[in-house]
Amino acid sequence: MSGIKKCGTGTLVVSCPDQVGIVAAVSNFVAQRQGSLIESNHHTDIEQDWFFMRNVINVDDLAVTLDTFREEFEALAQQFDMQWYLRDNQVLQKVVIMASHASHCLADLLYRWKSDELACDITCVLSNHENLRGMVEWHGIPFHYVPVPKEDKAEAFAKVSDIVARHRADCVVLARYMQIIPPDLCSAYSGRLINIHHSFLPSFMGANPYQKAYERGVKLIGATSHYVTEDLDEGPIIDQDVIRVSHSCTRDDMVRLGRDVEKSVLARALRYHLQDRVIVRGNKTVVFSQ
Amino acid sequence: MSGIKKCGTGTLVVSCPDQVGIVAAVSNFVAQRQGSLIESNHHTDIEQDWFFMRNVINVDDLAVTLDTFREEFEALAQQFDMQWYLRDNQVLQKVVIMASHASHCLADLLYRWKSDELACDITCVLSNHENLRGMVEWHGIPFHYVPVPKEDKAEAFAKVSDIVARHRADCVVLARYMQIIPPDLCSAYSGRLINIHHSFLPSFMGANPYQKAYERGVKLIGATSHYVTEDLDEGPIIDQDVIRVSHSCTRDDMVRLGRDVEKSVLARALRYHLQDRVIVRGNKTVVFSQ
Amino acid sequence: MSGIKKCGTGTLVVSCPDQVGIVAAVSNFVAQRQGSLIESNHHTDIEQDWFFMRNVINVDDLAVTLDTFREEFEALAQQFDMQWYLRDNQVLQKVVIMASHASHCLADLLYRWKSDELACDITCVLSNHENLRGMVEWHGIPFHYVPVPKEDKAEAFAKVSDIVARHRADCVVLARYMQIIPPDLCSAYSGRLINIHHSFLPSFMGANPYQKAYERGVKLIGATSHYVTEDLDEGPIIDQDVIRVSHSCTRDDMVRLGRDVEKSVLARALRYHLQDRVIVRGNKTVVFSQ
Amino acid sequence: MSGIKKCGTGTLVVSCPDQVGIVAAVSNFVAQRQGSLIESNHHTDIEQDWFFMRNVINVDDLAVTLDTFREEFEALAQQFDMQWYLRDNQVLQKVVIMASHASHCLADLLYRWKSDELACDITCVLSNHENLRGMVEWHGIPFHYVPVPKEDKAEAFAKVSDIVARHRADCVVLARYMQIIPPDLCSAYSGRLINIHHSFLPSFMGANPYQKAYERGVKLIGATSHYVTEDLDEGPIIDQDVIRVSHSCTRDDMVRLGRDVEKSVLARALRYHLQDRVIVRGNKTVVFSQ
Repeated sequence: MSGIKKCGTGTLVVSCPDQVGIVAAVSNFVAQRQGSLIESNHHTDIEQDWFFMRNVINVDDLAVTLDTFREEFEALAQQFDMQWYLRDNQVLQKVVIMASHASHCLADLLYRWKSDELACDITCVLSNHENLRGMVEWHGIPFHYVPVPKEDKAEAFAKVSDIVARHRADCVVLARYMQIIPPDLCSAYSGRLINIHHSFLPSFMGANPYQKAYERGVKLIGATSHYVTEDLDEGPIIDQDVIRVSHSCTRDDMVRLGRDVEKSVLARALRYHLQDRVIVRGNKTVVFSQ
Repeated sequence: MSGIKKCGTGTLVVSCPDQVGIVAAVSNFVAQRQGSLIESNHHTDIEQDWFFMRNVINVDDLAVTLDTFREEFEALAQQFDMQWYLRDNQVLQKVVIMASHASHCLADLLYRWKSDELACDITCVLSNHENLRGMVEWHGIPFHYVPVPKEDKAEAFAKVSDIVARHRADCVVLARYMQIIPPDLCSAYSGRLINIHHSFLPSFMGANPYQKAYERGVKLIGATSHYVTEDLDEGPIIDQDVIRVSHSCTRDDMVRLGRDVEKSVLARALRYHLQDRVIVRGNKTVVFSQ
Repeated sequence: MSGIKKCGTGTLVVSCPDQVGIVAAVSNFVAQRQGSLIESNHHTDIEQDWFFMRNVINVDDLAVTLDTFREEFEALAQQFDMQWYLRDNQVLQKVVIMASHASHCLADLLYRWKSDELACDITCVLSNHENLRGMVEWHGIPFHYVPVPKEDKAEAFAKVSDIVARHRADCVVLARYMQIIPPDLCSAYSGRLINIHHSFLPSFMGANPYQKAYERGVKLIGATSHYVTEDLDEGPIIDQDVIRVSHSCTRDDMVRLGRDVEKSVLARALRYHLQDRVIVRGNKTVVFSQ
Repeated sequence: MSGIKKCGTGTLVVSCPDQVGIVAAVSNFVAQRQGSLIESNHHTDIEQDWFFMRNVINVDDLAVTLDTFREEFEALAQQFDMQWYLRDNQVLQKVVIMASHASHCLADLLYRWKSDELACDITCVLSNHENLRGMVEWHGIPFHYVPVPKEDKAEAFAKVSDIVARHRADCVVLARYMQIIPPDLCSAYSGRLINIHHSFLPSFMGANPYQKAYERGVKLIGATSHYVTEDLDEGPIIDQDVIRVSHSCTRDDMVRLGRDVEKSVLARALRYHLQDRVIVRGNKTVVFSQ
């Protein structure tokens, strides 16, 4: 959005029990402080009686500071029992990317980041293999090699946790990181730990989804980006996509074709996440896609 | 939306010059009258500084009648220089469908209407051929045969205008009606006259688009639903879609594959129109698709 | 294919262990009898060392009758250990459609059949509900009502089998028939009994796939057409497709959007089947799609 | 195809007037020399009575050398008036990529090449800007900077021609090269000069297609890869694809979304070309896509 680039913006994200008057109350609050709305999305989950809202606010003309806005908004939030936050979009989110041997998702994210498609600060890449170091360092990004030996995964993940914490990650992206994340890391980064799974979930959960897809003879293969929870491949889905395959595709062809889907789904999911377009509730997401 | 079915609703559609406070003013207005928002969409065209809004309001709990709402809203509308209307969704819109010899779009619309996918009242079907009479009358809908002889189109279209007017059409759908609509009819139903063109506009405007697509050797063929204006195939686009073709497709194959795209694009465009999801400005549309 | 319409054709379908010289042998055989190839597709499954072939032959200029062709071809077939058949496309295949309460797939197939998109003879429609009788009979097709009471399904399916046999069905289509087909019927029509399942298999097998998709929060819903085997929803897949959904879709929206996918996937699968484009091997299909 | 990787292969591409016996003659010829067919595709253009064929042959077991095969095939070719060639897939084709300022298509091709998705030898990248030098040289590929000043394009293109010739390019790829190629270069590399145009041709030919798409209000934007001819954006189309946009997309959003389509369409077209899957006839292509 060229408008977003031209002015400073803040993103106000709200979810709460539905009732008459929320939009009025919030938009009044914003308007009274001279905040103009650059983009505004609402959703009411009628079944659950729950309300979701995302407002992108021009903060250049705002009559108060963001801190004051936050302080004053708290009263309103309590009145409506809101979960909420206001993001200052001038402060880039810190992202740590974890990868293994496969390079396609990582290369794609780095390219998009370098091309200003992903507004974030990639603070480091962390891998259990050494092979991607050259590509990462060429982008001027620190590369951490943390091997994960079968016999001592706990120690390895202690190191991983430490590095992620040290880089003060707002968000961790598993760009085809082929190790299972331990529960404590899952819960520490709940709603901020994004994975790409190389199947159309819930089909083909777990290992070797392309092999399983090949054996089942499906006519479409897919990829799913989701928030990681302790239940493998069962977290809230952010985005999915598929591509057509045929009997003439070998497993290798599926792997190759699937790479393109994985890349684009993960990039889109991360972009939505960084723009605060994704709100998790239960095991589902509201995604205010553009 | 199951919520829409359960309660009576009204749809408030607004467009006006953008400024701080519109959402606040409108949502306050609605909330003060106990109107709860079932769905709400906004868009700001930053380049043109123009604001678009669509609110679906639960009218069962509304503290005022729709007429009172309209009267009271007028003051607000003038303040913000709004173009606006409030639709009572309990009153079905009257739709006249015009077709020629080809049956696929008409059959699809009639099926969807019968299956309650299209909330409207199809008051009649009008054609310059007789062949579709049986299908139309089987659905219990009046069929009007108005031939359009080359030598006297004016008289034919006088009859067409008369029939459409007599049926008090809110909306006229050209379901592969193969005659050019005269300018006076275009302007009388401006923004309410929906066509399906069997190409991906602006490619292949005018006659024989599949033949042209075949000759050009395109790898995708498409269909475009748009509001009709005096400029043939140049009106505001509501929806488009495409389907993949290959060298092995003959023109007949393209015609066959294209039919499915035409059907679904026209049905979606009409559905969006009937739900007041489409707002025209200049030669473009804002479509608050679901 | 306009070529198919202009001349009489036969379709020769072959599968056998792969070896050098099969294409040469078969195409020589055809050429020596003055058969020109209108369409020809091969596939070699390198992993299984298996060869698949489909030839559409212009029979108008063929120097022998189809029966003579068949007799003479048998020697060649034995030499290469072929499974094979030669279909005379002048003889329409007999299709029995089974449906339950939902009408969308049935209505779509009937429309396509009436529009000459499906070259077959729909000999009857069989349902465990009465509601679709009017639509079927309007098309001039016999309608059989065979209720399937919970307490006596065996008797009901004996009637079903009898009707299908009496109509000498070459192919049976389950157009959202909501009863489980007994094993004996599955095996009697093995490779000729086509189902449409309203999910992207293997996701959401069994009952209520849209409900499950809604609960899982997937971002695409789909449909799968497959040959029915004794293992529910696990037979060889012919075709699949998906459509995008979002958090704003209720279950009802998913059902509505899914209908369009179900319709098109089933119609495409049936078309492929009738054109002998589908060859089953193991639990997978080769589909020589156009 | 794992099979292609495991054995040495040759690709025999044939097109000629259609008649009975071509497939028999060619497949006999191959079988008599112990050539097994790994992949085989035919197409008959019934309207033009023209036959197209592509055979991938395992050459490891072939009883003759490729040169002998070629010599002996010539007699057959003359008999059927064939245009034909036999490619030795052990010899990588030499590809020269030309780019301007935008990096996305180039970066994508380099990544795929490095990942062994594109079986070719990228002998150099040539640009009228300096900005992509670092990325190209990091891949170990020579970079040639050839500015194209408005006042002396002829001299610049003489240099371009010289570089391309010196690198003995089998194929030249315009990866968003923003200069018009002079006619002599077009004809020198006829059928081997591949462009990506950032619109769904024939819509929005020439400059600024995204601006034009934005102004027209289309709901899908696309990209087209085609062979370059003297007529700007009118050469034979190899592949096309589209992506959905909405009223909420600015021109910048369209440019961003379009980049992904451009990348994948160009990569697919180049892959098809390098695998000899594309046969040009007149201004159209037969593409034996996988």
